[in-house]
Amino acid sequence: MAPIISVFENSPDRGQGHARDMRVRWALEEVGQPYDIRTVSFKQMKKPAYRALHPFGQIPTYEEDGLTLFESGAIVLHIAQKQSGLLPEDEHARARAITWMFAALNTVEPPIVERETATYTERNRSWFEEHLEMLNERVHVRLRDLSASLGDAEWLDGTFSVGDLMMVCVLRRLEGSGILDRYPNLSAFVERGKARPAYQRAFDGQFAVFRAADTQ
Amino acid sequence: MAPIISVFENSPDRGQGHARDMRVRWALEEVGQPYDIRTVSFKQMKKPAYRALHPFGQIPTYEEDGLTLFESGAIVLHIAQKQSGLLPEDEHARARAITWMFAALNTVEPPIVERETATYTERNRSWFEEHLEMLNERVHVRLRDLSASLGDAEWLDGTFSVGDLMMVCVLRRLEGSGILDRYPNLSAFVERGKARPAYQRAFDGQFAVFRAADTQ
Repeated sequence: MAPIISVFENSPDRGQGHARDMRVRWALEEVGQPYDIRTVSFKQMKKPAYRALHPFGQIPTYEEDGLTLFESGAIVLHIAQKQSGLLPEDEHARARAITWMFAALNTVEPPIVERETATYTERNRSWFEEHLEMLNERVHVRLRDLSASLGDAEWLDGTFSVGDLMMVCVLRRLEGSGILDRYPNLSAFVERGKARPAYQRAFDGQFAVFRAADTQ
Repeated sequence: MAPIISVFENSPDRGQGHARDMRVRWALEEVGQPYDIRTVSFKQMKKPAYRALHPFGQIPTYEEDGLTLFESGAIVLHIAQKQSGLLPEDEHARARAITWMFAALNTVEPPIVERETATYTERNRSWFEEHLEMLNERVHVRLRDLSASLGDAEWLDGTFSVGDLMMVCVLRRLEGSGILDRYPNLSAFVERGKARPAYQRAFDGQFAVFRAADTQ
Protein backbone atom coordinates (compact mmCIF):
# COMPACT_ATOMS: atom_id res chain seq x y z
CA MET A 1 0.00 0.00 0.00
CA ALA A 2 1.29 3.46 -0.93
CA PRO A 3 1.32 5.90 1.98
CA ILE A 4 -1.56 8.38 2.13
CA ILE A 5 -1.03 11.99 3.13
CA SER A 6 -3.74 14.49 3.97
CA VAL A 7 -3.75 17.87 2.25
CA PHE A 8 -6.00 20.94 2.12
CA GLU A 9 -8.99 20.40 -0.13
CA ASN A 10 -8.65 24.07 -1.07
CA SER A 11 -5.30 25.49 -0.01
CA PRO A 12 -5.57 29.00 1.48
CA ASP A 13 -2.32 30.00 -0.27
CA ARG A 14 -3.97 29.40 -3.67
CA GLY A 15 -1.51 26.74 -4.79
CA GLN A 16 1.72 28.51 -3.87
CA GLY A 17 2.90 25.40 -2.03
CA HIS A 18 3.41 27.05 1.35
CA ALA A 19 1.24 24.55 3.20
CA ARG A 20 3.03 21.88 5.20
CA ASP A 21 2.06 19.00 2.92
CA MET A 22 4.61 20.41 0.45
CA ARG A 23 7.47 19.27 2.73
CA VAL A 24 6.14 15.76 2.86
CA ARG A 25 5.42 15.63 -0.87
CA TRP A 26 8.94 16.87 -1.63
CA ALA A 27 10.51 14.28 0.69
CA LEU A 28 8.47 11.49 -0.91
CA GLU A 29 9.49 12.66 -4.39
CA GLU A 30 13.19 12.82 -3.38
CA VAL A 31 13.19 9.18 -2.22
CA GLY A 32 11.01 8.08 -5.16
CA GLN A 33 8.08 6.87 -3.05
CA PRO A 34 4.68 7.02 -4.77
CA TYR A 35 1.85 8.19 -2.51
CA ASP A 36 -1.85 8.90 -2.42
CA ILE A 37 -3.60 11.94 -1.03
CA ARG A 38 -6.70 12.50 1.09
CA THR A 39 -8.15 16.00 0.70
CA VAL A 40 -9.76 17.55 3.77
CA SER A 41 -11.79 20.73 4.16
CA PHE A 42 -11.30 23.14 7.07
CA LYS A 43 -14.56 21.86 8.50
CA GLN A 44 -13.55 18.20 8.28
CA MET A 45 -10.17 18.90 9.89
CA LYS A 46 -11.82 19.89 13.14
CA LYS A 47 -14.14 16.86 13.35
CA PRO A 48 -13.48 13.84 15.60
CA ALA A 49 -12.87 11.45 12.68
CA TYR A 50 -9.94 13.54 11.45
CA ARG A 51 -8.71 14.42 14.94
CA ALA A 52 -8.26 10.71 15.53
CA LEU A 53 -5.48 11.02 12.93
CA HIS A 54 -4.24 14.49 13.96
CA PRO A 55 -4.96 15.70 17.52
CA PHE A 56 -4.45 19.36 16.52
CA GLY A 57 -6.74 19.14 13.46
CA GLN A 58 -4.18 20.23 10.90
CA ILE A 59 -2.60 18.92 7.74
CA PRO A 60 -0.60 16.85 6.87
CA THR A 61 -1.10 13.40 8.27
CA TYR A 62 0.70 10.31 6.99
CA GLU A 63 -0.71 6.79 6.94
CA GLU A 64 1.03 3.60 5.96
CA ASP A 65 0.33 -0.04 6.96
CA GLY A 66 -0.81 0.28 10.56
CA LEU A 67 1.01 3.54 11.30
CA THR A 68 -0.43 7.05 11.47
CA LEU A 69 1.82 10.07 11.95
CA PHE A 70 1.24 13.82 12.09
CA GLU A 71 3.66 16.81 12.22
CA SER A 72 5.50 17.50 8.97
CA GLY A 73 8.86 17.24 10.76
CA ALA A 74 8.15 13.77 12.13
CA ILE A 75 6.78 12.56 8.81
CA VAL A 76 9.72 13.87 6.79
CA LEU A 77 12.18 12.34 9.26
CA HIS A 78 10.33 9.02 9.09
CA ILE A 79 10.57 9.02 5.29
CA ALA A 80 14.24 10.02 5.40
CA GLN A 81 15.13 7.25 7.85
CA LYS A 82 13.20 4.61 5.95
CA GLN A 83 14.50 5.24 2.45
CA SER A 84 17.75 6.57 1.12
CA GLY A 85 18.26 9.95 -0.51
CA LEU A 86 17.64 12.46 2.26
CA LEU A 87 20.23 11.61 4.92
CA PRO A 88 23.98 11.00 4.57
CA GLU A 89 25.34 7.51 5.27
CA ASP A 90 27.93 8.75 7.78
CA GLU A 91 26.45 8.69 11.28
CA HIS A 92 27.79 12.07 12.36
CA ALA A 93 26.75 13.79 9.13
CA ARG A 94 23.33 12.20 9.61
CA ALA A 95 22.95 13.70 13.09
CA ARG A 96 24.02 17.11 11.80
CA ALA A 97 21.49 16.98 8.94
CA ILE A 98 18.76 16.21 11.48
CA THR A 99 20.00 19.14 13.58
CA TRP A 100 19.36 21.47 10.65
CA MET A 101 15.88 20.10 10.31
CA PHE A 102 15.17 20.99 13.94
CA ALA A 103 16.79 24.41 13.45
CA ALA A 104 14.41 25.05 10.55
CA LEU A 105 11.36 24.02 12.58
CA ASN A 106 12.14 25.31 16.06
CA THR A 107 14.49 28.28 15.54
CA VAL A 108 13.82 29.76 12.09
CA GLU A 109 10.16 28.97 11.45
CA PRO A 110 8.54 30.30 14.67
CA PRO A 111 9.36 34.00 14.13
CA ILE A 112 8.39 33.67 10.46
CA VAL A 113 5.00 32.19 11.36
CA GLU A 114 4.56 34.79 14.10
CA ARG A 115 5.10 37.56 11.58
CA GLU A 116 2.80 35.92 9.05
CA THR A 117 0.06 35.45 11.66
CA ALA A 118 0.24 39.13 12.62
CA THR A 119 -0.34 40.13 8.99
CA TYR A 120 -3.65 38.22 9.14
CA THR A 121 -4.81 38.94 12.67
CA GLU A 122 -3.47 42.41 13.47
CA ARG A 123 -3.68 44.27 10.19
CA ASN A 124 -6.63 46.35 11.39
CA ARG A 125 -5.22 47.15 14.82
CA SER A 126 -3.76 50.56 15.54
CA TRP A 127 -0.48 49.02 16.61
CA PHE A 128 0.06 46.87 13.51
CA GLU A 129 2.93 48.80 11.89
CA GLU A 130 4.82 49.22 15.14
CA HIS A 131 4.46 45.56 16.06
CA LEU A 132 5.31 44.38 12.54
CA GLU A 133 8.62 46.19 12.80
CA MET A 134 9.46 44.25 15.96
CA LEU A 135 8.44 40.98 14.32
CA ASN A 136 10.47 41.73 11.19
CA GLU A 137 13.52 42.31 13.34
CA ARG A 138 13.03 38.96 15.08
CA VAL A 139 13.03 37.27 11.66
CA HIS A 140 16.16 39.19 10.63
CA VAL A 141 18.01 38.04 13.76
CA ARG A 142 17.59 34.44 12.59
CA LEU A 143 18.28 35.16 8.92
CA ARG A 144 21.51 37.03 9.64
CA ASP A 145 22.84 34.05 11.58
CA LEU A 146 21.61 31.56 9.01
CA SER A 147 23.13 33.56 6.18
CA ALA A 148 26.48 33.79 8.00
CA SER A 149 26.43 30.06 8.64
CA LEU A 150 25.60 29.11 5.05
CA GLY A 151 28.19 31.48 3.57
CA ASP A 152 29.11 30.42 0.04
CA ALA A 153 28.14 26.80 0.54
CA GLU A 154 25.58 25.11 -1.68
CA TRP A 155 23.75 23.37 1.19
CA LEU A 156 23.76 23.72 4.99
CA ASP A 157 26.07 20.79 5.73
CA GLY A 158 27.67 19.02 2.76
CA THR A 159 25.27 17.28 0.40
CA PHE A 160 21.55 18.03 0.09
CA SER A 161 19.62 16.59 3.03
CA VAL A 162 16.40 16.69 4.96
CA GLY A 163 17.79 19.77 6.74
CA ASP A 164 18.00 21.72 3.50
CA LEU A 165 14.59 20.50 2.39
CA MET A 166 12.99 21.75 5.59
CA MET A 167 14.89 25.04 5.62
CA VAL A 168 13.97 25.86 2.02
CA CYS A 169 10.28 25.24 2.80
CA VAL A 170 10.47 27.42 5.91
CA LEU A 171 12.22 30.28 4.10
CA ARG A 172 9.71 30.11 1.26
CA ARG A 173 7.07 31.32 3.71
CA LEU A 174 8.76 34.73 3.43
CA GLU A 175 8.05 34.95 -0.29
CA GLY A 176 6.24 38.17 -1.09
CA SER A 177 7.53 39.94 2.04
CA GLY A 178 10.75 41.18 0.40
CA ILE A 179 12.62 40.15 3.57
CA LEU A 180 14.69 37.44 1.94
CA ASP A 181 15.99 39.84 -0.72
CA ARG A 182 18.48 41.22 1.79
CA TYR A 183 20.23 37.83 1.92
CA PRO A 184 21.40 36.91 -1.58
CA ASN A 185 22.95 33.64 -0.44
CA LEU A 186 19.72 32.53 1.26
CA SER A 187 17.67 33.54 -1.80
CA ALA A 188 20.03 31.50 -3.99
CA PHE A 189 19.77 28.57 -1.55
CA VAL A 190 15.97 28.63 -1.85
CA GLU A 191 16.19 28.77 -5.64
CA ARG A 192 18.58 25.78 -5.66
CA GLY A 193 16.04 23.83 -3.67
CA LYS A 194 13.20 24.83 -5.96
CA ALA A 195 15.20 23.81 -9.02
CA ARG A 196 15.38 20.17 -7.91
CA PRO A 197 13.20 17.90 -10.07
CA ALA A 198 11.68 16.30 -6.94
CA TYR A 199 10.64 19.75 -5.67
CA GLN A 200 9.04 20.54 -8.99
CA ARG A 201 7.07 17.29 -9.06
CA ALA A 202 5.88 17.97 -5.50
CA PHE A 203 4.90 21.53 -6.40
CA ASP A 204 2.97 20.39 -9.46
CA GLY A 205 1.21 17.78 -7.33
CA GLN A 206 -0.07 20.27 -4.78
CA PHE A 207 -0.93 22.81 -7.49
CA ALA A 208 -3.07 20.27 -9.32
CA VAL A 209 -5.14 19.76 -6.15
CA PHE A 210 -5.64 23.50 -5.75
CA ARG A 211 -6.63 23.93 -9.41
CA ALA A 212 -9.12 21.09 -9.22
CA ALA A 213 -10.83 22.71 -6.20
CA ASP A 214 -10.65 26.22 -7.63
CA THR A 215 -12.27 25.38 -10.96
CA GLN A 216 -15.15 23.44 -9.45
CA MET B 1 34.90 10.95 26.79
CA ALA B 2 31.64 12.05 28.40
CA PRO B 3 29.57 14.37 26.22
CA ILE B 4 29.77 18.08 27.01
CA ILE B 5 26.71 20.31 26.90
CA SER B 6 26.71 24.09 27.02
CA VAL B 7 24.51 25.87 29.55
CA PHE B 8 23.90 29.44 30.69
CA GLU B 9 26.59 30.66 33.04
CA ASN B 10 23.85 32.58 34.81
CA SER B 11 20.40 31.40 33.79
CA PRO B 12 17.94 34.26 33.28
CA ASP B 13 15.16 32.17 34.87
CA ARG B 14 17.10 32.08 38.16
CA GLY B 15 17.40 28.31 38.30
CA GLN B 16 13.81 27.39 37.51
CA GLY B 17 15.00 24.99 34.84
CA HIS B 18 13.10 26.56 31.95
CA ALA B 19 16.20 26.95 29.78
CA ARG B 20 16.63 24.44 26.98
CA ASP B 21 19.60 22.65 28.55
CA MET B 22 17.10 21.12 31.01
CA ARG B 23 15.67 18.94 28.22
CA VAL B 24 19.08 17.61 27.34
CA ARG B 25 20.08 17.09 30.99
CA TRP B 26 16.85 15.21 31.64
CA ALA B 27 17.35 12.97 28.59
CA LEU B 28 20.92 12.20 29.64
CA GLU B 29 19.75 11.35 33.17
CA GLU B 30 16.98 9.09 31.83
CA VAL B 31 19.44 7.00 29.82
CA GLY B 32 22.06 7.09 32.59
CA GLN B 33 24.70 8.91 30.56
CA PRO B 34 27.15 11.01 32.63
CA TYR B 35 28.03 14.36 31.04
CA ASP B 36 30.09 17.47 31.55
CA ILE B 37 28.99 21.06 31.17
CA ARG B 38 30.48 24.16 29.63
CA THR B 39 29.05 27.38 31.03
CA VAL B 40 28.73 30.34 28.66
CA SER B 41 27.83 33.96 29.28
CA PHE B 42 25.47 35.92 27.05
CA LYS B 43 28.49 37.77 25.71
CA GLN B 44 30.43 34.59 24.89
CA MET B 45 27.39 33.05 23.15
CA LYS B 46 27.49 35.70 20.45
CA LYS B 47 31.23 35.42 19.73
CA PRO B 48 32.66 33.54 16.74
CA ALA B 49 34.27 30.80 18.89
CA TYR B 50 30.89 29.78 20.28
CA ARG B 51 29.03 30.35 17.01
CA ALA B 52 31.30 27.74 15.46
CA LEU B 53 29.43 25.32 17.73
CA HIS B 54 26.01 26.98 17.47
CA PRO B 55 25.25 29.17 14.43
CA PHE B 56 22.41 30.96 16.26
CA GLY B 57 24.47 31.69 19.39
CA GLN B 58 22.19 29.91 21.86
CA ILE B 59 22.37 27.13 24.40
CA PRO B 60 22.54 24.14 24.50
CA THR B 61 25.21 22.59 22.33
CA TYR B 62 26.29 18.95 22.59
CA GLU B 63 29.78 17.65 21.91
CA GLU B 64 30.98 14.08 21.84
CA ASP B 65 33.93 12.45 20.05
CA GLY B 66 34.10 14.37 16.77
CA LEU B 67 30.45 15.39 16.69
CA THR B 68 28.92 18.76 17.59
CA LEU B 69 25.16 19.25 17.63
CA PHE B 70 22.87 22.14 18.50
CA GLU B 71 19.06 22.42 18.89
CA SER B 72 17.65 20.76 21.98
CA GLY B 73 15.30 18.65 19.83
CA ALA B 74 18.11 17.23 17.73
CA ILE B 75 20.28 16.56 20.76
CA VAL B 76 17.53 14.82 22.71
CA LEU B 77 16.63 12.69 19.67
CA HIS B 78 20.31 11.78 19.21
CA ILE B 79 20.55 10.66 22.83
CA ALA B 80 17.28 8.72 22.58
CA GLN B 81 18.36 6.90 19.42
CA LYS B 82 21.80 6.07 20.78
CA GLN B 83 20.83 4.68 24.15
CA SER B 84 17.77 2.88 25.42
CA GLY B 85 15.21 4.32 27.79
CA LEU B 86 13.53 7.09 25.84
CA LEU B 87 12.06 5.38 22.79
CA PRO B 88 9.94 2.22 22.54
CA GLU B 89 11.43 -0.84 20.82
CA ASP B 90 8.48 -1.26 18.46
CA GLU B 91 9.15 0.64 15.25
CA HIS B 92 5.69 2.17 14.92
CA ALA B 93 5.53 3.23 18.57
CA ARG B 94 8.98 4.76 18.09
CA ALA B 95 7.81 6.88 15.16
CA ARG B 96 4.77 8.01 17.15
CA ALA B 97 6.93 9.01 20.14
CA ILE B 98 9.08 11.10 17.80
CA THR B 99 5.90 12.66 16.39
CA TRP B 100 5.00 13.90 19.86
CA MET B 101 8.44 15.41 20.22
CA PHE B 102 7.91 17.41 17.03
CA ALA B 103 4.41 18.35 18.19
CA ALA B 104 5.90 19.74 21.40
CA LEU B 105 8.53 21.76 19.53
CA ASN B 106 6.70 22.91 16.42
CA THR B 107 3.02 23.06 17.40
CA VAL B 108 2.79 23.64 21.16
CA GLU B 109 5.96 25.57 21.98
CA PRO B 110 5.79 28.40 19.40
CA PRO B 111 2.63 30.10 20.75
CA ILE B 112 3.95 29.64 24.31
CA VAL B 113 7.25 31.32 23.44
CA GLU B 114 5.42 34.03 21.50
CA ARG B 115 3.32 34.81 24.57
CA GLU B 116 6.38 34.75 26.83
CA THR B 117 8.31 37.06 24.51
CA ALA B 118 5.47 39.58 24.50
CA THR B 119 5.56 39.74 28.30
CA TYR B 120 9.19 40.88 28.03
CA THR B 121 9.09 43.08 24.96
CA GLU B 122 5.60 44.60 24.91
CA ARG B 123 4.78 45.13 28.56
CA ASN B 124 5.20 48.89 28.26
CA ARG B 125 3.28 49.26 25.01
CA SER B 126 -0.25 50.63 25.06
CA TRP B 127 -1.55 47.59 23.25
CA PHE B 128 -0.05 44.98 25.62
CA GLU B 129 -3.23 43.77 27.35
CA GLU B 130 -5.18 43.55 24.13
CA HIS B 131 -2.42 41.65 22.36
CA LEU B 132 -1.79 39.36 25.34
CA GLU B 133 -5.41 38.26 25.20
CA MET B 134 -4.92 37.21 21.56
CA LEU B 135 -1.72 35.37 22.45
CA ASN B 136 -3.33 33.60 25.41
CA GLU B 137 -6.10 32.36 23.16
CA ARG B 138 -3.54 30.97 20.70
CA VAL B 139 -1.98 29.00 23.56
CA HIS B 140 -5.39 27.75 24.69
CA VAL B 141 -6.20 26.49 21.19
CA ARG B 142 -3.23 24.13 21.46
CA LEU B 143 -3.80 23.18 25.09
CA ARG B 144 -7.46 22.29 24.51
CA ASP B 145 -6.47 19.88 21.75
CA LEU B 146 -3.56 18.48 23.73
CA SER B 147 -5.74 17.99 26.80
CA ALA B 148 -8.41 16.21 24.74
CA SER B 149 -5.78 13.98 23.18
CA LEU B 150 -4.14 13.04 26.49
CA GLY B 151 -7.47 12.38 28.22
CA ASP B 152 -6.97 10.15 31.24
CA ALA B 153 -3.77 8.58 29.96
CA GLU B 154 -0.55 8.75 31.92
CA TRP B 155 1.63 9.63 28.94
CA LEU B 156 0.98 10.81 25.38
CA ASP B 157 1.37 7.43 23.67
CA GLY B 158 1.86 4.39 25.88
CA THR B 159 5.01 4.36 27.99
CA PHE B 160 7.07 7.43 28.89
CA SER B 161 9.13 8.60 25.92
CA VAL B 162 11.09 11.45 24.44
CA GLY B 163 7.74 12.92 23.35
CA ASP B 164 6.54 13.23 26.95
CA LEU B 165 9.90 14.59 28.08
CA MET B 166 9.78 17.35 25.50
CA MET B 167 6.10 18.16 26.07
CA VAL B 168 6.56 18.43 29.85
CA CYS B 169 9.47 20.85 29.34
CA VAL B 170 7.45 22.94 26.88
CA LEU B 171 4.39 23.09 29.16
CA ARG B 172 6.57 24.06 32.13
CA ARG B 173 7.26 27.34 30.34
CA LEU B 174 3.68 28.30 31.28
CA GLU B 175 4.43 28.02 35.02
CA GLY B 176 3.49 31.22 36.78
CA SER B 177 0.99 32.24 34.08
CA GLY B 178 -1.95 30.34 35.60
CA ILE B 179 -2.85 29.13 32.11
CA LEU B 180 -2.18 25.47 32.76
CA ASP B 181 -4.53 25.45 35.79
CA ARG B 182 -7.50 25.23 33.44
CA TYR B 183 -6.30 21.80 32.28
CA PRO B 184 -6.09 19.47 35.28
CA ASN B 185 -4.96 16.51 33.18
CA LEU B 186 -2.11 18.52 31.64
CA SER B 187 -1.07 19.86 35.05
CA ALA B 188 -1.01 16.30 36.40
CA PHE B 189 0.98 15.18 33.35
CA VAL B 190 3.61 17.85 34.05
CA GLU B 191 3.77 16.83 37.70
CA ARG B 192 4.24 13.17 36.72
CA GLY B 193 7.18 14.19 34.59
CA LYS B 194 8.68 16.30 37.34
CA ALA B 195 8.35 13.43 39.81
CA ARG B 196 10.69 11.20 37.80
CA PRO B 197 14.06 10.72 39.53
CA ALA B 198 15.91 11.55 36.31
CA TYR B 199 14.05 14.86 36.07
CA GLN B 200 14.96 15.69 39.64
CA ARG B 201 18.64 14.94 39.09
CA ALA B 202 18.60 17.13 35.97
CA PHE B 203 16.84 19.92 37.84
CA ASP B 204 19.32 19.78 40.71
CA GLY B 205 22.17 19.87 38.19
CA GLN B 206 21.00 23.05 36.50
CA PHE B 207 20.08 24.64 39.84
CA ALA B 208 23.59 24.05 41.21
CA VAL B 209 25.05 25.99 38.25
CA PHE B 210 22.67 28.88 38.86
CA ARG B 211 23.43 28.95 42.58
CA ALA B 212 27.19 28.91 41.97
CA ALA B 213 26.89 31.95 39.66
CA ASP B 214 24.41 33.75 41.88
CA THR B 215 26.49 33.55 45.06
CA GLN B 216 29.70 34.74 43.42
